[in-house]
Amino acid sequence: MQEEVRVVLDAMGGDHAPEEMIKGAVEAVNEKNNIHVLLVGQEDVISEELEKYTYPKERMEIVHASEVIETAEPPVMAIRKKKDSSIVVGMNMVKNGEADAFVSAGSSGAILVGGQVIVGRIKGIERPPLAPLIPTEQGVSLLVDCGANVDARPSHLVQFAKMGSIYMEHVMGIKKPRVAIVNIGAEEEKGNALVKETFPLLKECEDINFVGSIEAREIPHGYADVIVCEAFTGNVILKLYEGVASTLMSAVKQGMMSSLKSKIGALMVKPALKSTLKQFDTAQYGGAPLLGLNGLVVKTHGSSKAAEIKNTILQCAVFQEQDINQKIKTYIVQKQEEQE
Amino acid sequence: MQEEVRVVLDAMGGDHAPEEMIKGAVEAVNEKNNIHVLLVGQEDVISEELEKYTYPKERMEIVHASEVIETAEPPVMAIRKKKDSSIVVGMNMVKNGEADAFVSAGSSGAILVGGQVIVGRIKGIERPPLAPLIPTEQGVSLLVDCGANVDARPSHLVQFAKMGSIYMEHVMGIKKPRVAIVNIGAEEEKGNALVKETFPLLKECEDINFVGSIEAREIPHGYADVIVCEAFTGNVILKLYEGVASTLMSAVKQGMMSSLKSKIGALMVKPALKSTLKQFDTAQYGGAPLLGLNGLVVKTHGSSKAAEIKNTILQCAVFQEQDINQKIKTYIVQKQEEQE
Repeated sequence: MQEEVRVVLDAMGGDHAPEEMIKGAVEAVNEKNNIHVLLVGQEDVISEELEKYTYPKERMEIVHASEVIETAEPPVMAIRKKKDSSIVVGMNMVKNGEADAFVSAGSSGAILVGGQVIVGRIKGIERPPLAPLIPTEQGVSLLVDCGANVDARPSHLVQFAKMGSIYMEHVMGIKKPRVAIVNIGAEEEKGNALVKETFPLLKECEDINFVGSIEAREIPHGYADVIVCEAFTGNVILKLYEGVASTLMSAVKQGMMSSLKSKIGALMVKPALKSTLKQFDTAQYGGAPLLGLNGLVVKTHGSSKAAEIKNTILQCAVFQEQDINQKIKTYIVQKQEEQE
Repeated sequence: MQEEVRVVLDAMGGDHAPEEMIKGAVEAVNEKNNIHVLLVGQEDVISEELEKYTYPKERMEIVHASEVIETAEPPVMAIRKKKDSSIVVGMNMVKNGEADAFVSAGSSGAILVGGQVIVGRIKGIERPPLAPLIPTEQGVSLLVDCGANVDARPSHLVQFAKMGSIYMEHVMGIKKPRVAIVNIGAEEEKGNALVKETFPLLKECEDINFVGSIEAREIPHGYADVIVCEAFTGNVILKLYEGVASTLMSAVKQGMMSSLKSKIGALMVKPALKSTLKQFDTAQYGGAPLLGLNGLVVKTHGSSKAAEIKNTILQCAVFQEQDINQKIKTYIVQKQEEQE
């Protein structure tokens, strides 16, 4: 039998907590029999919700935490003050080795701060980036960093590229993942100061498959597996991606509903359209890991429903089974040896 | 009668030059009787193409230029060396007051460099930004800067905000245009160093209607009329916008063509869908002006067809009739007086 993977799930974070969180947890333990979920949050609320489901009791636990960190709270203060919040309690379990991973749909700020302050960085990692998968025509790409470290330096981006490559190769199963840096033109001399300084450093890296610059227009076509950028740019990309997609989809729906004829047409088109557009549904790819920490921390969308939670928990299992953090540590040691 | 507006059109620039350029020029002079177009480029090619059309001869001229700057050429060198290129000849006409505006679908780099070097900045303008209109659910927003000045400073962004406001108010007819700065969160303390430094400066400006931060997700919803950002970010926004839209639209089409049933449905849906999606077609809004120059320079998409060229020429007429550059100069003088 495979080794057990212990995932702490923040039952209280996200727009659809606790219902969808708990539903997702149940689906995950029912799907894969080496997964153990620890639901952290208000015990009475969680146990009442859990009663609705059938699942292997020995692989689901409740860990009581009386407080909840709200999305609007200043993150540093929240992590410091709310010692009995689901985020702080859950992250401490990862830190203390009682669990392998922590998953939350709660406050991004608190998760980023908690990840660094409580779980802590792997020695030698300068900044832990947030790395969501984004859907493309060809599958998915990893966008790294999408919001953890604004105003990053070139050496940070080089580490992002390597950690992203390890993730895509071993969690997503892509051989020699293509790494590209977000730029405003394809030529090496294009870009802002950060990109111009980072480009030659990436080109020198023999342990990644660097393919050069990627313009934002090409991102949806899937021309790179690992897309490296500074967090401000990455956050703009992630959010604009979602914004344009949802705006266009509602325009399409609205157009289809505008006449009787088009409504009938819409009914005939719907099933085919649904399956084509499914590849652009972020929920099926799970959450965004914070890479380079002493343990796995994953942020899912605030609007996550059960499917995304389940997929995120399954993704944590692969992360653990593939021993990603050990691979990151090995890389750091190699780099340090090269520099000595 | 309205005063004549003289627009130089680069007949040789763009993927569909010269055919679509000339067609657009003909449509523009036929539509508005105070427009005079000067087609700059290879005379024999242009006159042969022009013979296909009926138009008021006295308002269309050919200005010969023997050279063409290719998109791949290094811009600074191209502007310096190719003195008889359509871009250099056309811009010199604006500089010398022989024309009011220059429009080109050619090399972005050469247009940006030529605008600064040949046409020159209005005194007091630190950096001239490139400002395209982007479609939203509510109409259009002006994205400023989308690629002219990477690594800009806070004072540049303040000027972008003001010039963008003047443009949206007087060219697009939006009263008190809402100005927002692109950010990765709604709160004032969010952002990278540039945004954090620029935010309070914009807040202080009494001559613009600053509404705070805008997250990329909100851009397609049209929550701001003038969207201020540094050029690297702006370029990423513009290109990702186009990339996601075109990718999704082809996925929708592909989905509709996947079965006989969906194909029949598609036929019924098509007319309604077409009119709904028309608002997201950038061609109808014309090109991107380079603001703050001693004369108007407008860059259209490399893939521009006649409709975009026509609309851009009409837009130049409004720019001229509303005396936008005089309004920018007045603003600069006021600012300088305030500082004295």
